[in-house]
Amino acid sequence: MSVTAARGFRASGVAAGLKASGAPDVAIVVNDGPLQVAAGVFTGNRFKAAPVVWSQQVLRARTLRGVVLNSGGANACTGAGGFQDTHRTAELAASLLCSAGLETGAGEIAVCSTGLIGERLPMDRLEAGVEHAFGRLSDDGGGDAATAIMTTDTVPKLAAYDSGVYRIGGMAKGAGMLAPALATMLVVVTTDALLTEAQAEEALRHAAAHSFDRIDSDGCMSTNDTVLLLASGASGVRPDPAEFIAALTDVCANLARQLIADAEGASKDIAIIVESAASVADALVVARAIARSNLLKCALHGEDPNWGRVLSAMGTTNAQFEPDRVDVAMNGVWICRGGSIGEPRTLVSLSAREIEICVSLGAGFEGATVWTNDLTAEYVHENSAYAT
Amino acid sequence: MSVTAARGFRASGVAAGLKASGAPDVAIVVNDGPLQVAAGVFTGNRFKAAPVVWSQQVLRARTLRGVVLNSGGANACTGAGGFQDTHRTAELAASLLCSAGLETGAGEIAVCSTGLIGERLPMDRLEAGVEHAFGRLSDDGGGDAATAIMTTDTVPKLAAYDSGVYRIGGMAKGAGMLAPALATMLVVVTTDALLTEAQAEEALRHAAAHSFDRIDSDGCMSTNDTVLLLASGASGVRPDPAEFIAALTDVCANLARQLIADAEGASKDIAIIVESAASVADALVVARAIARSNLLKCALHGEDPNWGRVLSAMGTTNAQFEPDRVDVAMNGVWICRGGSIGEPRTLVSLSAREIEICVSLGAGFEGATVWTNDLTAEYVHENSAYAT
Repeated sequence: MSVTAARGFRASGVAAGLKASGAPDVAIVVNDGPLQVAAGVFTGNRFKAAPVVWSQQVLRARTLRGVVLNSGGANACTGAGGFQDTHRTAELAASLLCSAGLETGAGEIAVCSTGLIGERLPMDRLEAGVEHAFGRLSDDGGGDAATAIMTTDTVPKLAAYDSGVYRIGGMAKGAGMLAPALATMLVVVTTDALLTEAQAEEALRHAAAHSFDRIDSDGCMSTNDTVLLLASGASGVRPDPAEFIAALTDVCANLARQLIADAEGASKDIAIIVESAASVADALVVARAIARSNLLKCALHGEDPNWGRVLSAMGTTNAQFEPDRVDVAMNGVWICRGGSIGEPRTLVSLSAREIEICVSLGAGFEGATVWTNDLTAEYVHENSAYAT
Repeated sequence: MSVTAARGFRASGVAAGLKASGAPDVAIVVNDGPLQVAAGVFTGNRFKAAPVVWSQQVLRARTLRGVVLNSGGANACTGAGGFQDTHRTAELAASLLCSAGLETGAGEIAVCSTGLIGERLPMDRLEAGVEHAFGRLSDDGGGDAATAIMTTDTVPKLAAYDSGVYRIGGMAKGAGMLAPALATMLVVVTTDALLTEAQAEEALRHAAAHSFDRIDSDGCMSTNDTVLLLASGASGVRPDPAEFIAALTDVCANLARQLIADAEGASKDIAIIVESAASVADALVVARAIARSNLLKCALHGEDPNWGRVLSAMGTTNAQFEPDRVDVAMNGVWICRGGSIGEPRTLVSLSAREIEICVSLGAGFEGATVWTNDLTAEYVHENSAYAT
């Protein structure tokens, strides 16, 4: 499982003292090749953290030898000094690889950070942690790495896929500030398939658009979101492109669902399925508007099938539909038909953790699903005390 | 105070049994003239409740003899039957006015409803309530009317203005689903000034845009929002147009602030002041994005000056600004300068109920303020149990 499920990768995770709790907070992933093909997708936020700016720059060459990740500090909104900190981190990792006989420049090292925005990282601790983590790199260190990137996550998120001839492995972190595009997530996915740079790029864009871009925990977009794909080619197998995209999308969707299932304070996992839309874009706009309704999310927490809150959220969008042609089901009961009263709401049971809301727009033949969760007092509690 | 502060108006509020609690739930406002000039602004939601569709139609004639309002049911998403219910309500009110010697058609009666979406109103109770309320109309009934339109409001919202020669009075309800444009609100404002139809329209549009459109409790837009202005001309005074607009805007801003102060579960009243924007529209886009950040609203609830959540919300907008020119202050302390770390966050005290967040975009000379509140466990609680 995790990033070392694919051949050609080593990883590790250690505690460097960035977190007051003493929990692991520095992770490294190294791609030993023979190839070092890479691709990345990043937050759409205009306030991009220093490590995002750095990693976007280095990814232009579509090559990564390694990734340094830390929790315990986002290094976002930290100015030129924060960017220098990221640069130094990459330089250190490159020099450690060089010392080990692997010729590497800082421009082949991506950096990911997560934690509080607006604080500089304690570089002495981070650098000692990076050195420590290098000494512990191993081909079964993926689990340790996944643990070291956790923030408010309660469990590490791992996924793996084995085609029989090549493998894909992944790790993710993120429990709040989850919204397109992307969620507050750090994700590293590895594969030992032989990929061209263009294949890696295309596969990652498709997979992220159909997984991480379709979860929305709290409507808040992070400054640090990073999803990286590293391909080592160690299997020697050149996969069928479409088949690889499908497998990568499955791994990413698996990680995305784990993020939503562990979202801060959540007690319900909610799938919002929009059907018969005029376009996928319309379906996504409607699904996201519904996923962002605090009122609906409170109602679902209270197991109240308040479908009026579904319609009032949809009614704020410009998606193509006629209000009197809209149907809504909750857990299979069509409680709204033609924009008006359908089956009795008393028929709906919302007591299980999994809730499915199906919206039929009656406007076409496209659809999309967005995953979200309920809004709870625990979410408020966790996020009112996060920085302190 | 309230709608009977202006001359030429009678009002009343009674309990009709629409609310299970037995609290007052039907209100009537009558304009005895000599003029019956009126204007209205309504929700932007595409799912408009039956009374909104009705009132928008009758307002085309820019004349209203009266308004019937009910709480205990929104009559939204109730199909053709729901619209017939609204029509019957207006017919009944008109016939009661005719019986009292005041020649009135149903087309001169606006109807406003608020409460749960997706349920038909119990028309027998509503009609008995309207008859009862007609029998109790009086020129000091404004307080009773304001009480009868409350839903989760904990206090009635009243405002009045006296220029010395003419008067403005208003009532409002709304405690959740408050977001532009408009909030989940019913508002009736009356004046005894002599206004032309065009003046009434212009004044109400300006006043609503600068008051109700600038509060955002929970980012959720209602199906029922209605703001009505009724002018009786009873003072015989033709006001200076600009002065009247300013006075009306003050009354509406007063009511809007009362709505935010009584928002569901709120423990903080938050003003988001955006300055040095390239346009008012940009300032509003930024202020609203900040006002809708659940993460920020949780942090402020916890009295945590987490300015990274201000920037991450702004960073999702297309407003004109350079991230490294943005400054943010909380309660007067500039904790973010140039998109990076400013004064120590420990200098900020957020212990008072009133919080002021000031954002300087460094992009121009325009500004706007949006009012919101914090996100609390009590909000979750109230809204997870609303329908039951």
